[in-house]
Amino acid sequence: MAVGELVLPEFNPVAGLRIGTASAGIKKPGRKDLVVFELAAGSTTAGIFTLNAFCAAPVQLCKEHLQQGSPRYLVINTGNANAGTGVAGLDNARKTCQVLADLAGVKSTEVLPFSTGVIGEPLPMDRLLAALPQALEQLTNNGWADAASGIMTTDTKPKGATASCEINGQHVVISGIAKGAGMIKPNMATMLGFIATDATIDSVLLKELLKQAADVSFNRITIDGDTSTNDSCMLVATGQSAKISVEDTAALQSFTACLQQVMQHLALSIVRDGEGATKFVTVQVEQAATTAEALEAAFTVAHSPLVKTALYASDANWGRILAAVGRAPGLESLDVSSVTVYLDDVLLVEQGGRAASYTEDAGSAVMQQTEITLRILLGRGKATETVWTCDFSHDYVTINADYRT
Amino acid sequence: MAVGELVLPEFNPVAGLRIGTASAGIKKPGRKDLVVFELAAGSTTAGIFTLNAFCAAPVQLCKEHLQQGSPRYLVINTGNANAGTGVAGLDNARKTCQVLADLAGVKSTEVLPFSTGVIGEPLPMDRLLAALPQALEQLTNNGWADAASGIMTTDTKPKGATASCEINGQHVVISGIAKGAGMIKPNMATMLGFIATDATIDSVLLKELLKQAADVSFNRITIDGDTSTNDSCMLVATGQSAKISVEDTAALQSFTACLQQVMQHLALSIVRDGEGATKFVTVQVEQAATTAEALEAAFTVAHSPLVKTALYASDANWGRILAAVGRAPGLESLDVSSVTVYLDDVLLVEQGGRAASYTEDAGSAVMQQTEITLRILLGRGKATETVWTCDFSHDYVTINADYRT
Repeated sequence: MAVGELVLPEFNPVAGLRIGTASAGIKKPGRKDLVVFELAAGSTTAGIFTLNAFCAAPVQLCKEHLQQGSPRYLVINTGNANAGTGVAGLDNARKTCQVLADLAGVKSTEVLPFSTGVIGEPLPMDRLLAALPQALEQLTNNGWADAASGIMTTDTKPKGATASCEINGQHVVISGIAKGAGMIKPNMATMLGFIATDATIDSVLLKELLKQAADVSFNRITIDGDTSTNDSCMLVATGQSAKISVEDTAALQSFTACLQQVMQHLALSIVRDGEGATKFVTVQVEQAATTAEALEAAFTVAHSPLVKTALYASDANWGRILAAVGRAPGLESLDVSSVTVYLDDVLLVEQGGRAASYTEDAGSAVMQQTEITLRILLGRGKATETVWTCDFSHDYVTINADYRT
Repeated sequence: MAVGELVLPEFNPVAGLRIGTASAGIKKPGRKDLVVFELAAGSTTAGIFTLNAFCAAPVQLCKEHLQQGSPRYLVINTGNANAGTGVAGLDNARKTCQVLADLAGVKSTEVLPFSTGVIGEPLPMDRLLAALPQALEQLTNNGWADAASGIMTTDTKPKGATASCEINGQHVVISGIAKGAGMIKPNMATMLGFIATDATIDSVLLKELLKQAADVSFNRITIDGDTSTNDSCMLVATGQSAKISVEDTAALQSFTACLQQVMQHLALSIVRDGEGATKFVTVQVEQAATTAEALEAAFTVAHSPLVKTALYASDANWGRILAAVGRAPGLESLDVSSVTVYLDDVLLVEQGGRAASYTEDAGSAVMQQTEITLRILLGRGKATETVWTCDFSHDYVTINADYRT
């Protein structure tokens, strides 16, 4: 059960991009689990990937192929992560690219592979390869919705976002999908995110725009603190509409705002659909000495099992919040008496202790909500950072005691 | 339900030390919740305390009083942590010391206060002070067992350890108690630990011995990664038996071994009684480049919600173990293909992937046990470190969604 409305938008189709979804029966027969993106010649593509040392075979191959030129196809399977699979896993990823390239008449280095699902199992290559022709046949100008379902694992809802803006008299669209519900503490990108625009952007700028937008979206969310082995986030620019360049500041700002809107929507959708989530929580740390300190405090609170179980219980347990802030790396010198905490607009903690004006009724009213903002003011400086997370419920344990990642 | 046998030992009484336990009705009427230690004149005392910036009022006062001389009394209440209570909390801790000092005929700076329980509630001073005479009346030469119960919070079992050794022809004893089940990732010491010996040890050496022993016991355990606001660990030497000094290496080694045995037993008892624990897990990281790296890897695995829920489910989910190792701070450059993992004696992972010899039956047999050792060989060097933890169950969520820390 996701927190809040998670309804797919009416996607803006992106000129120069077609998407096809098929059923390979990788983990379960019948479900859509194979997605192919086709990129028009002249498209530019940027990617950011997990910083986990145990990065999966497809992640390794994506990085390798991206260095060799502009991709024409992306191929994504769910049900199997092809991670921890050694040399054989890398061979399987290469083979997938080669077979798709032969079918489509491109070079194998022009194909990027992505996988998500169980770690450590060999890819069922016969079923995967057999479904590639079907995925190509299904290529369509607006296949986003099917693809959003086709990349899910423990997600309960497909996730997508779409936006558009006018740039120098031209209509520019951005659409994207993402998946992820557990093993979510992205470090560079989320489990899988695919965003495309019809704008014209050179690959150096595209990478920079992706990185900036990821830093205020996917890199600011956490479900369980466990960084995945397969995190990948791709941004494609098909070059069919307005040109975005560093020199045209107004165009750059319009596009950046639009891109951040799409990527934040996708990132927040992942948190709303966090494994077992019953609450969507914004943790905003203000008055920190540095950005790094604000982030450490926010993530320490967002990862604390005691804070997360209190949120699940709708318990305004400010002692656990303060205890988490107090153990955040770099905050050893924190002056407790300068700390203030708000639950939405309710003043909960002042001068490091319960606020005189605070009543359990007022706190309880906020805690009963499914969406809560925790504002923590450190009284040390001017930096503010926000991260988004969810609570920790019985269902999180049930899901992860049953599911083999 | 604790994992394994948690039975209090037959405590060796420590000459020069008396303990009294009383009922103040701090949180619930009738239960023993107030403990007083009386230390003979000439005793030395060392203490180590939480590094959480939000340290509780009694922790602040303990540090202050320890600098002013040798304590003669320790007073401990459970049911209320006197943390996050501001100036009033500090006044209450001072008042407690003053009243006990007046009753006992010592200076208030010769009393050290300790509190554990709910954060952010004012201490019920009338009930606490009223019970102090009763605690003094109960002072007895071997009051360890009652005290072990009298300091519990969410603990399901009291925890104690005792040992003795011969030093230069003299019989030396060490006894100790500890409490803690949640908010456990000690950083200097555990929630509350009290250890006493009849040996004669100057206060500088005593502090050093305590710190060394804590580093291989309380500082190597974690339940939920949440460092408490009240962690305190005290070591008292009453000076009634053999002298331990740096110059007498043989005596120092005998005593150190004995002290580590007692403190490790206490620390491991806390893990066995971890909130909701169904499994006791030893995480041993070998072949690390440095001690720091070994500890980061071990704690990252021990804190991973995905690893902990897999342990709960008896699922030999090596992908989650590798994913946790791969995101440990400082291990970005890890060469995955050099990593080996054992489940007890079963080879689970070799060269970064599932071992050829591994069978689900063999792994499953180990995972069904209530005590499991995870050995993770990084192939980067010679450092080895061990931490102890427990799994993450439905009961952890139930306990922490119901209990206000």
